[in-house]
Amino acid sequence: MNHESKANSTITIKGILSLLMESLDENNSKRVISLGMGDPTLSTCFPNTKVAEEAVADALHSAKFHGYAPTPGLLQARRAIAKYLSDDLPYELSSDDVFITCGCTQAIDVSFTLLARPAANILLPRPGFPIYELSAAFRQVEVRHYDLLPEKGWEVDLDAIEALADRNTVAIVIINPGNPCGNVYTYHHLEKVYCKNSKMLGTIVIADEVYGHLAFGDNPFVPMGVFGSIVPVLTLGSLSKRWIVPGWRLGWFVTNDPSGTFRKPKVVERIKKYFDLLGGPATFIQAAVPSHNYTDRREMEDIPCISFPCKPQGSMAMMAELNLSLLEDISDDIDFCFKLAKEESVIILPGTARHAREQ
Amino acid sequence: MNHESKANSTITIKGILSLLMESLDENNSKRVISLGMGDPTLSTCFPNTKVAEEAVADALHSAKFHGYAPTPGLLQARRAIAKYLSDDLPYELSSDDVFITCGCTQAIDVSFTLLARPAANILLPRPGFPIYELSAAFRQVEVRHYDLLPEKGWEVDLDAIEALADRNTVAIVIINPGNPCGNVYTYHHLEKVYCKNSKMLGTIVIADEVYGHLAFGDNPFVPMGVFGSIVPVLTLGSLSKRWIVPGWRLGWFVTNDPSGTFRKPKVVERIKKYFDLLGGPATFIQAAVPSHNYTDRREMEDIPCISFPCKPQGSMAMMAELNLSLLEDISDDIDFCFKLAKEESVIILPGTARHAREQ
Ligand SMILES: Cc1ncc(COP(=O)(O)O)c(C=O)c1O
Ligand SMILES: Cc1ncc(COP(=O)(O)O)c(C=O)c1O
Repeated sequence: MNHESKANSTITIKGILSLLMESLDENNSKRVISLGMGDPTLSTCFPNTKVAEEAVADALHSAKFHGYAPTPGLLQARRAIAKYLSDDLPYELSSDDVFITCGCTQAIDVSFTLLARPAANILLPRPGFPIYELSAAFRQVEVRHYDLLPEKGWEVDLDAIEALADRNTVAIVIINPGNPCGNVYTYHHLEKVYCKNSKMLGTIVIADEVYGHLAFGDNPFVPMGVFGSIVPVLTLGSLSKRWIVPGWRLGWFVTNDPSGTFRKPKVVERIKKYFDLLGGPATFIQAAVPSHNYTDRREMEDIPCISFPCKPQGSMAMMAELNLSLLEDISDDIDFCFKLAKEESVIILPGTARHAREQ
Repeated sequence: MNHESKANSTITIKGILSLLMESLDENNSKRVISLGMGDPTLSTCFPNTKVAEEAVADALHSAKFHGYAPTPGLLQARRAIAKYLSDDLPYELSSDDVFITCGCTQAIDVSFTLLARPAANILLPRPGFPIYELSAAFRQVEVRHYDLLPEKGWEVDLDAIEALADRNTVAIVIINPGNPCGNVYTYHHLEKVYCKNSKMLGTIVIADEVYGHLAFGDNPFVPMGVFGSIVPVLTLGSLSKRWIVPGWRLGWFVTNDPSGTFRKPKVVERIKKYFDLLGGPATFIQAAVPSHNYTDRREMEDIPCISFPCKPQGSMAMMAELNLSLLEDISDDIDFCFKLAKEESVIILPGTARHAREQ
């Protein structure tokens, strides 16, 4: 099956969500409870910060930010993000390490586009976040899935990585805190992902930290960038989850790479050129980034659920287990979700939507 | 030369502009006059419309638009753009024809990504807008240049098109009103671009109308979409130029295609999936689109210049001719621009930055 048709057959969260919404029963008087999407603005428990909103309004009205920003992003925003991330690192990022994107979504696709080359493969977690599979299909990168192990708190299956990686493995994606499993990895486990795997040495780590700091269990959040001196890390993130403003579309693609792989003039040149094509987020939204009050952020407290192999520790998602033998007239997770939408007006996503379909 | 290295050798406007800015003489007391970039916010003659700004601020403060928009764009914005464009067309566009992008820049790259396939080529104007060459390099589409003819008011060289097009020609790009030549094409000329060229029948026209309606000469602006029933047209545009807010990054990719090429379920599905990857502009900026006061827009009146083969009629650019024999110690256009920056603090772009370098 070629990449092209893979793009078409990739299940997307948005696709399955709209099918589920369509299957709600109009005659059902139950209030719709939609838990299918990590959009914190849909719940009134998590208001966004007024301080951030005012900063954006001020920038809009200042008349200084109606013009183009430099394509890698406005310097003051790149600096603020470098500083925000450096607080958790043993070294200082510079504004040159930060490229501003339209959310973490675009940062994912930027990573894949820049790493794509004939025969390249990338290791993705299963369960994972389907945008990765979709981006791989469009950018013609081969996907190889490693499992997350529920019995080990959704840790990475290290043996699988050893078995999957080869010299065409250009990167491994680590989502931490994890969606959809709610895992938060320890320093020790993150270290093992590449140290215990001789084949991983040198392979780039794409660290999806869009849920960075949303950790509410035993393990504190450790950014992958702490290993940046040993392995080149691309840190992807955004304001979406922690600042509860996914609609602002402000994300980042950050090279955590004190040893310099991404600082070669040719590589820097290529990244910059690629950003010339992207469009980027509004200049005035970028201008407000330095004013965002990082102490005013909300932390998640609890998430309602059904039943799960291990308690979620972070992010905004959790992976539930469905015991079909206890259910009547339910053939699988998809069937369950559609019936739940129709009968109870509750929207949750089937685990399948989080797995890439193997063709 | 492969596509990869082409991306690196493509001259970009932003690249040459920053070199020119660096070559300004700090000890020169002359005020810097920067004419190198089509950013109307850099000049105080063109204030943006306060009405549009207020609509954005209202949407921001409404607390309704902090969440994700559907990836093809917010319905109300898609509808408003469909209506705005339909006013000049013999048929009605629907909101389904409109996909919202981060400026016209991203709409260009979306077109190329969606049309790319092995061996595909696209016809580009020369002089043109270098983002096209850059996108072609990243998306691995072969570029074939047709000339614009200064002696014919920068009309398309129709014979060149006949000679260049073959069965792998997936599209032709027409920039009208034109950058950098300031051309505005008649209905009659636009019609000839494909009607007189048997090989063009069926080839998609990518109509870059980012300067749509910015016509101040004899020819009124005619959108390519008027021929949508005969030839499938992708209309690309944005708020950047006419509403003088390039920093808002709100553009559109519109299928003008009453005969249905882009309405096949598989094609629609693929476009939608691609938009899932893009990130898109901020939801609250999209929400304000329907309130933008289309009568409050500014029209350009005049642009200062040096000397030109034919008077510009539209857009925000003009192509000047440099008579080297009258100049002392100037080797070419690049040399001229760097010396002008240094000695006179005036920034203009060399014509070369607008040509794709032939390798
Ligand atoms: C793991 C993961 N990565 C990336 C994203 C995209 O985030 P953004 O809103 O910043 O594009 C999400 C959103 O749900 C996510 O769950
Ligand atoms: C011909 C042409 N197309 C596209 C663009 C990009 O416009 P936007 O600001 O909407 O990305 C420009 C901007 O200068 C342009 O001149």
